[in-house]
Amino acid sequence: MSGVLPVAFVASHTGPWQITQISPVVGESLPAASHLTLVEGQGHVLPDPAVWCLRGVVSHLRYTGDAEVQALRARQQPLGRPEARCAALIPIRKNAAWWALPQDVRRAIVEEQSHHIAIGLNYLPGIARRLHHGRDLGEPFDFLTWFDYAPEQASAFEALVAKLRATEEWRYVDREVDIRLERVG
Amino acid sequence: MSGVLPVAFVASHTGPWQITQISPVVGESLPAASHLTLVEGQGHVLPDPAVWCLRGVVSHLRYTGDAEVQALRARQQPLGRPEARCAALIPIRKNAAWWALPQDVRRAIVEEQSHHIAIGLNYLPGIARRLHHGRDLGEPFDFLTWFDYAPEQASAFEALVAKLRATEEWRYVDREVDIRLERVG
Repeated sequence: MSGVLPVAFVASHTGPWQITQISPVVGESLPAASHLTLVEGQGHVLPDPAVWCLRGVVSHLRYTGDAEVQALRARQQPLGRPEARCAALIPIRKNAAWWALPQDVRRAIVEEQSHHIAIGLNYLPGIARRLHHGRDLGEPFDFLTWFDYAPEQASAFEALVAKLRATEEWRYVDREVDIRLERVG
Repeated sequence: MSGVLPVAFVASHTGPWQITQISPVVGESLPAASHLTLVEGQGHVLPDPAVWCLRGVVSHLRYTGDAEVQALRARQQPLGRPEARCAALIPIRKNAAWWALPQDVRRAIVEEQSHHIAIGLNYLPGIARRLHHGRDLGEPFDFLTWFDYAPEQASAFEALVAKLRATEEWRYVDREVDIRLERVG
């Protein structure tokens, strides 16, 4: 109806992705689980019993400017390439101080100070990503980022994550969990 | 949990606000109803039977810059002043072309071209407003704006609404309904 795609990340005892690691980065972790299923759209039946379920929506861009959109579109790849047998789900919550900042100040921290978009661009097209927004839904995490990549991109992925966590922007992160996965079969 | 306030606007046969008019501005209207109740927060019991229910969340600012936040804070008044016996609920949806624009282009249309924030500022403190976001919730409207004001501000309110509807920004509005209300009792 509104061009927004709801996505549920459901951890249970079965699913197309095997969870290899759940690591707390900042704050409380998530319960252990063996498998994950992505459920896209409304009205689908969720795997039962679920150990946990995180929800978000794929929605419009919040900070990316026109020139950056062009650069991203020229390089980015879709999720689900056959070679992308590794994935990561990184749920993040930012603190109240972040959300109280005006739009221009948040944008300046994201890009002019932290180079978030430019850093991600450096790892395209090898690492594909999709951002899901959970804040307006009252979810425990503001953002769920899903990445997929081929096994030979694993060290590049570690470098990407390490660079982002070292930024000014990450000083506003008050909960972060790092979930790694491998495709089943 | 996340600093976001969910609000439901519930139209039914009873409630603290009497609906005096429901006018379609662009696109489909909403069904006739006599009264409206605002339900804030999670887990409240909604009036039953509801004729319609629109939901949104009070969340962070999406376009307002630092200087504008300071100007707004210096002048704006809270909702619910005793003299504010008139109200308006204006649900709006923007089209797909709007949501596909990059953040900097949307911001430029909102303020540098349409002066949305500056126009609203001119009508403070007489007219109080609160914006609710419904897009990420999959609601039929992207925005629900609630205004309240004293009866002597009624003509100022008409001027405010007319100015906004004449802007470049409003060319992206593909559904708008204008609901006017008076406080009961």
